[in-house]
Amino acid sequence: MKKIINDPKNVVTEMLEGIKYTNSNLELDKEQNIIYRKSNVKKVGLVSGGGSGHEPAHAGYVQKGMLDAAVCGNVFASPDPFSILEGIKKANHGLGVILIIKNYSGDIMNFEMAAEMAVMEGIDVKTIVVNDDISISDRDSRRGIAGTVLVHKILGNAAEEGKTIDELMILGNTVVKNLRSYGVSLSSCTIPEVGTPIFEIDEDEMEVGMGIHGEPGVKRQKIMSSDEISKKLIDAIISDDVDYEDGNIFVLINGLGGTPLMELYIVANSVKNILNDTNILVDRATVGNFMTSLEMQGMSITFLKLTDEISKHLYSGIDNTMLGR
Amino acid sequence: MKKIINDPKNVVTEMLEGIKYTNSNLELDKEQNIIYRKSNVKKVGLVSGGGSGHEPAHAGYVQKGMLDAAVCGNVFASPDPFSILEGIKKANHGLGVILIIKNYSGDIMNFEMAAEMAVMEGIDVKTIVVNDDISISDRDSRRGIAGTVLVHKILGNAAEEGKTIDELMILGNTVVKNLRSYGVSLSSCTIPEVGTPIFEIDEDEMEVGMGIHGEPGVKRQKIMSSDEISKKLIDAIISDDVDYEDGNIFVLINGLGGTPLMELYIVANSVKNILNDTNILVDRATVGNFMTSLEMQGMSITFLKLTDEISKHLYSGIDNTMLGR
Repeated sequence: MKKIINDPKNVVTEMLEGIKYTNSNLELDKEQNIIYRKSNVKKVGLVSGGGSGHEPAHAGYVQKGMLDAAVCGNVFASPDPFSILEGIKKANHGLGVILIIKNYSGDIMNFEMAAEMAVMEGIDVKTIVVNDDISISDRDSRRGIAGTVLVHKILGNAAEEGKTIDELMILGNTVVKNLRSYGVSLSSCTIPEVGTPIFEIDEDEMEVGMGIHGEPGVKRQKIMSSDEISKKLIDAIISDDVDYEDGNIFVLINGLGGTPLMELYIVANSVKNILNDTNILVDRATVGNFMTSLEMQGMSITFLKLTDEISKHLYSGIDNTMLGR
Repeated sequence: MKKIINDPKNVVTEMLEGIKYTNSNLELDKEQNIIYRKSNVKKVGLVSGGGSGHEPAHAGYVQKGMLDAAVCGNVFASPDPFSILEGIKKANHGLGVILIIKNYSGDIMNFEMAAEMAVMEGIDVKTIVVNDDISISDRDSRRGIAGTVLVHKILGNAAEEGKTIDELMILGNTVVKNLRSYGVSLSSCTIPEVGTPIFEIDEDEMEVGMGIHGEPGVKRQKIMSSDEISKKLIDAIISDDVDYEDGNIFVLINGLGGTPLMELYIVANSVKNILNDTNILVDRATVGNFMTSLEMQGMSITFLKLTDEISKHLYSGIDNTMLGR
């Protein structure tokens, strides 16, 4: 294992200290591993989180116009319900709290248990489950991956504008309904406390439909070119049940941590060329490492079907030039 | 070689198309591989560039308040003088152009030749050479690495505010004088057209003072912990000739492309703890992949001694929350 760390047991604690050090707008609850905003704005609170190792998700999205708190578990492990309850309390300003949960059984169980405890304490808590990964055909088993970040952005801006919890729930569920992602991984990754890669993969192979916690993909096959991979992913996305030919879409090309921006931009060019031959209209496309899997090489493509309201919140405060980092 | 690309010969061309696709504020000169801004603002033009493979440097910094044009060579290879001359012309709005050059012999030769050609055509062109890498003791041979991005930001904002070319040259040279970086690499990287790693390195080794083009470091040694590496780099930086105890500093922790944010934030925490035991005052610290070396694992630490004017331009338009991506 070749990593720049100290004790593998302390990676999350030290990382969170580092995040706080680089952002004076943030507070850190060291007991519960919660990054939260110093804010007393009267608004609906937004909380996300889950296992660590997906940075900048989710702690990096605790900011004005996005999340109010991120509850950070160990690497690839869900935080416990008591920590999540504490995160809910920190994000609650009296108008209720929405939990944005990626669809993994551990996260679902712990976030929902925390929601129930918070409701018993008189806090209005609702949950939005993101399941954008189409690699699994059974809808209930679909995982939340990179598209989750778009839910943070859209709901975050709408909450900052003063929308009620019920309005936000409608908006959030529309976003989830319009959101599909699919990806590939070229390498495994190593959980620091384990010390060896989660899986082995040959030099000429890739996993299609990988999970962001090193879960195996749907299929292992020979590595293909950027054009071929992009075509494969897009074909699957548009064969799913959202009609992307009806209206404009937003495209997110997300790196998994170990793939350089050069390759992600080459994928962006592949996506452009492939979609030029379809009736799908791209309003904007962006590239970056938004939801990673430690040092895993690979990427996913996300399509979000836009509505006027979604576009307004997605783009608010974002100059084109800020995308693509 | 495990990369998501098409033909290795076309990586730069396809990447630049992808960059343009994701940012409608940009123009692409496909003949000369120049990314430039659509702008007719009367201001001094700022041009940078060099070999590709350092993304988001430099094309990703072509935006309001930073660069006007980036001239992009092949992977790790300087662009030719004619392309640079064309970049100068695109950035020139009649008030002169400053070239921000990383100190490599190829870049120096080609950018200075282009500057001479532009001067002969009546354009006022000046050059700032960035040499922040302290791994080489001979000052004239020191390379430009991650600190270069801070020069883009500071001069970019000052130019946007209407500073003259002479004022910008004084400011830029002050920044260079106050800027020192030092880094380590844990892995090599592979130029797509070559197909094999630039160097071999054992699983328990790191290079200290690596170059961002795969140049060997000053020394190869056993890998150390984040605390130990950070201490080693900081001790060397503060032993150099800038007095960082006199006034506040800005710290940049830059990833080389293949090191996940988790590790960079752990380094940030190490830096915090190490500097707590010194008389050095950190005004802000930031973490991100600002100047990469393809998929190389590793990172560098940059110190910039602040002045009121430097801070003003460095922080302008940057909420704390935008740092750390």
